[in-house]
Order: sequence, then structure tokens, then C-alpha cells
Amino acid sequence: MSPADHAELALLLEVASTPKPGNVDRHRDHADLRFEHFLTGAVGSRPGLELAERVEGDDPPSIGDAFDRAVRGMSQQSGGNTQFGCLLLLVPLVRAASTDHLSPEGLTAVVEATTVDDAAAFYRAFEHVDVAVGDPPADASALDVRRGADAVPALRDRGLTLADVMAMSADRDGNAAEWISGFERTFAAADRVVVDDDPLTDRLARAFLDLLAERPDTLVAVEHGQERAKEVSREAAAVRDDLDAAEALAERFLDEGINPGTTADLTAATAFVALERGVRL
Amino acid sequence: MSPADHAELALLLEVASTPKPGNVDRHRDHADLRFEHFLTGAVGSRPGLELAERVEGDDPPSIGDAFDRAVRGMSQQSGGNTQFGCLLLLVPLVRAASTDHLSPEGLTAVVEATTVDDAAAFYRAFEHVDVAVGDPPADASALDVRRGADAVPALRDRGLTLADVMAMSADRDGNAAEWISGFERTFAAADRVVVDDDPLTDRLARAFLDLLAERPDTLVAVEHGQERAKEVSREAAAVRDDLDAAEALAERFLDEGINPGTTADLTAATAFVALERGVRL
Repeated sequence: MSPADHAELALLLEVASTPKPGNVDRHRDHADLRFEHFLTGAVGSRPGLELAERVEGDDPPSIGDAFDRAVRGMSQQSGGNTQFGCLLLLVPLVRAASTDHLSPEGLTAVVEATTVDDAAAFYRAFEHVDVAVGDPPADASALDVRRGADAVPALRDRGLTLADVMAMSADRDGNAAEWISGFERTFAAADRVVVDDDPLTDRLARAFLDLLAERPDTLVAVEHGQERAKEVSREAAAVRDDLDAAEALAERFLDEGINPGTTADLTAATAFVALERGVRL
Repeated sequence: MSPADHAELALLLEVASTPKPGNVDRHRDHADLRFEHFLTGAVGSRPGLELAERVEGDDPPSIGDAFDRAVRGMSQQSGGNTQFGCLLLLVPLVRAASTDHLSPEGLTAVVEATTVDDAAAFYRAFEHVDVAVGDPPADASALDVRRGADAVPALRDRGLTLADVMAMSADRDGNAAEWISGFERTFAAADRVVVDDDPLTDRLARAFLDLLAERPDTLVAVEHGQERAKEVSREAAAVRDDLDAAEALAERFLDEGINPGTTADLTAATAFVALERGVRL
């Protein structure tokens, strides 16, 4: 399978892996966001993922355009934002894998090569779907991602690349933190997944719990505050070795509206790296 | 979305729809054949589905080659045969949709245009994966599909097209019966699905029950005999208006090893036609 195939499959395996407390998974839906919306989002993402893997020739599609296309395709369903964050991680991972540089150094090179145009495409992608994000710092309201394409003149004035944009939000967004750290947590989680030999969806559910236990989820922090996010991580740590207890936690998080979505994004990225590393189903 | 996108999504929606008594679905696995094998099979099928939708130019890929490629891609997982029968229905459906002839007449035209080379490719596809099939008639053992490519000289001697091969097994194989009837049951089931407005996966689960109630499943007949297949249809008829009772039947069929797989194939085909007819998720 090609990197785009593995990325699409990673999206499907992420949502199929259960329990992932607080997220839609094989056993649970949210009220208006159901499992089948994620299946549709995964198939719809494909043209963008194919742009990300196209590296032949002098002028390959840009990372920003690939991401914008993937999000536009993902949005062809009525559930809303299914996989925006997953795609933000998968697009550079696919690009690195397509040039045989799927490593922290390879990802850093992909990130550092991004341009102001990539940043503009990233902002445009917010126009396809509502994404839950926190407020920007007071001095950066012109760059609020919720402004979509309206923020592009400010980006160009300041000459900000997509790497710069990610660096600005890495302290409050777990996906941006991956971008500027060479996808450190993704690679570490994938290293643990590849040596296990349970069914892959069980391994990915455990990877989710480990990632959530290890660091507070930044989407939970946006929606419920930093203290609650820390508590959620402690709750995940308490069930990480017991998938039955994790099932109960999944029911409770669903009732309480706790959605560790950034950790689910990291889980999809982990699945991708594991597949590229040779894990088979 | 393109016809190949809809076909891939139809494969995913089929396995996600639950309950489909006796089949792997969102809530149930078989011992060695799990949900994630179907996700992998769907992604792997894609290059073949793309051949089926490629109709530009003077020399489009043949239906037989598209099918053989789809099955080869589907087989890149360790679960075994996940979607051979689904693909046998989807490949001609994709071809008809790609030329704006998704109708009984359009499918009949696609089927009637098949050649001896298509038949040879169909036989080769059996070499990628073990498919449960019944014995051929006593006078047709040279054409047993389990012979794979070894049967190709006999095909060529007799000048049999893929349409001819399907006509020979239509009385004992529900997918072959679709091929020679203009996909009659698929279109009828899709007509019922498009007018409903419950979640699509619920509609598809009901379509499965209706199809199974309406005619005995030919895979069940191969594996357990015609009488048991008729009884299975009566049991499906008894629960068709009650998804809770269908859940109980699903548990029982799983315990008893009853697998109405041909009816699942028809359900995937039904999902494809419904998506092409404009059903949205």
C-alpha cells in the first residue's frame, strides 16, 4: 500500500479502535457525529492525501494545498469536523514517507520547508468546517485561525510560514507541538505499537490511553479548562492497563462531554507510522 | 465523490451497518475475520475500483482486469476473503455509473460487453484468496472456479465470456443472478433505502434483513444446504421490523456459523446505488 493508502487506513483504524474514552469509536457515537461520518471523512480525504504523496517532478503540490484539499474532501458529510487534526498530522507524515524520510529529522525538514503560501492554505482550510480552537494571544487576534482566509493579509505582512504559525500555538495545541518537535510523541507511540502483537485496534486503544495519560489533551483544555484536562489525564492513567475499566470511563466521558480529540489525532498519526513500519492486519 | 469513492464507501458502510445477522459488522467479529480486515480490504480494493471507473480514451481497462486488481488489493490482509462478492457486484456498477448508465439496462449492457478475457481475469482472481463456492455441475468440472487460471484453456476452448460464466451459475449463486438480471434486487433495495431517512447504516441493516427474508442466501446454501438457507430466510423475515430481535438473531447465527455473505454483498451494492442516487451522510 502507498503512503496515501496507509493514511486513509490510519483514519479508519483510529475510529475503529475502542475504547478511546470520550471519542467516537467502534462502540460509541456522539449525538450528531456518528461513526459513519468518520468513514465518509476518511474516503473524502483521499484526494488531499494523494497530493501529499505526489513528490515526483519539479513542482510537487504544496503541503498547504494538500491539507486544504484533504479537509475540503473530509467535509463532504453532515457530522462536521471529523478529522481536521488527524489530517494536520497525516499530511506531513505522508510527504515524509513518500520521500523515504519518515523519521523525526525527515518531519522536521518537511515542516521547515513550509512557506507563507502553506500558511495561507492552512487558514483557508478552516473555512470548510467548524474547528474547536482556543483564543489566540491578545497580540495575535489578526492571526486567529477562525478568521480563515481573512487572516491571510496579516500572514503575508508578517511573512509567517506554516512552521511559524505552528510554533506560535505549540504551547496550547498538541498537534502544533508535534509539528515543531519532529513528531516526537507520534514516533514514540508507534515504537510501542509495533512491538506488541495483539489485534492492532486494541494496541491503538492502548496507545490512545498512554498518550492521554502522558500529557493533558489540548482540546479538552480548550473546552473545559486546563485543570479538567489534567484530571482527564489522571483518569486515563488509572485505566491504562485495564480495557474494561477504560470502557466504563468511555461511557462517563461521553455523558460528561469530555472529548480528548487531540489525543485521537495523535492515535491516527501513530497508526500511520506503525503501518509504514510494516505492521500488518 | 467519484464512483470509485462511492464504491469504497459502500464497502465501509456495509461492514459498519449492524445488525446484519451472521456477518461481521460494527458490533461483531468472526474468530479470525475481524472488522479491521474489512477496513483494510476496502482501502486495498481501491486501485481496482479506479480501473473500473476509468472509461476515457479508446481502450479503457476491462471489467475483468479491474475485478482481478480489486481482489488482489483486497487480499492484502490476513483475514482472508472479506469482499470478493461485494467487488464482483461493485465493479460493473462502478463502470455503469462512470458512463452515466446506472440502471438495469446500463448494467445489462456492461455485462453483455464482457469477453473471454474478462472471464479469464475472473478465474485468475480466485488465486488471490480462498472463496467459498459450491461444486459446479458434473459436466462443468473443467470450469470449476477453484481451478483458477488452470481453467482458462477450457474457457477459451468454449469461447465463454464472463457473462456466459455468470449465466452458468446464476441458479446457485446470488451474485451471478444479479449479473444476469440487470442487478434487479440491488436496484429494488436501493429504491427502498433512498426514501427512508433514518441513519444510513440502520437503513442498510434493514435492507440486509429484507434481502435475506426475500430469498435464501446462496452462501448459506453452499455451506449448510438449501433447507437451512430457507429456514434462515424465514428467521430473518421474523425479525425484519425489529432491530432488537435482529440483534439476538445475529448472536445466534454467529454461534451457529451461519454466514449469509451473499446477502451482505447485495447490501454493499445497494449502498453504492443509494450513494450514487444522492443519499448523503
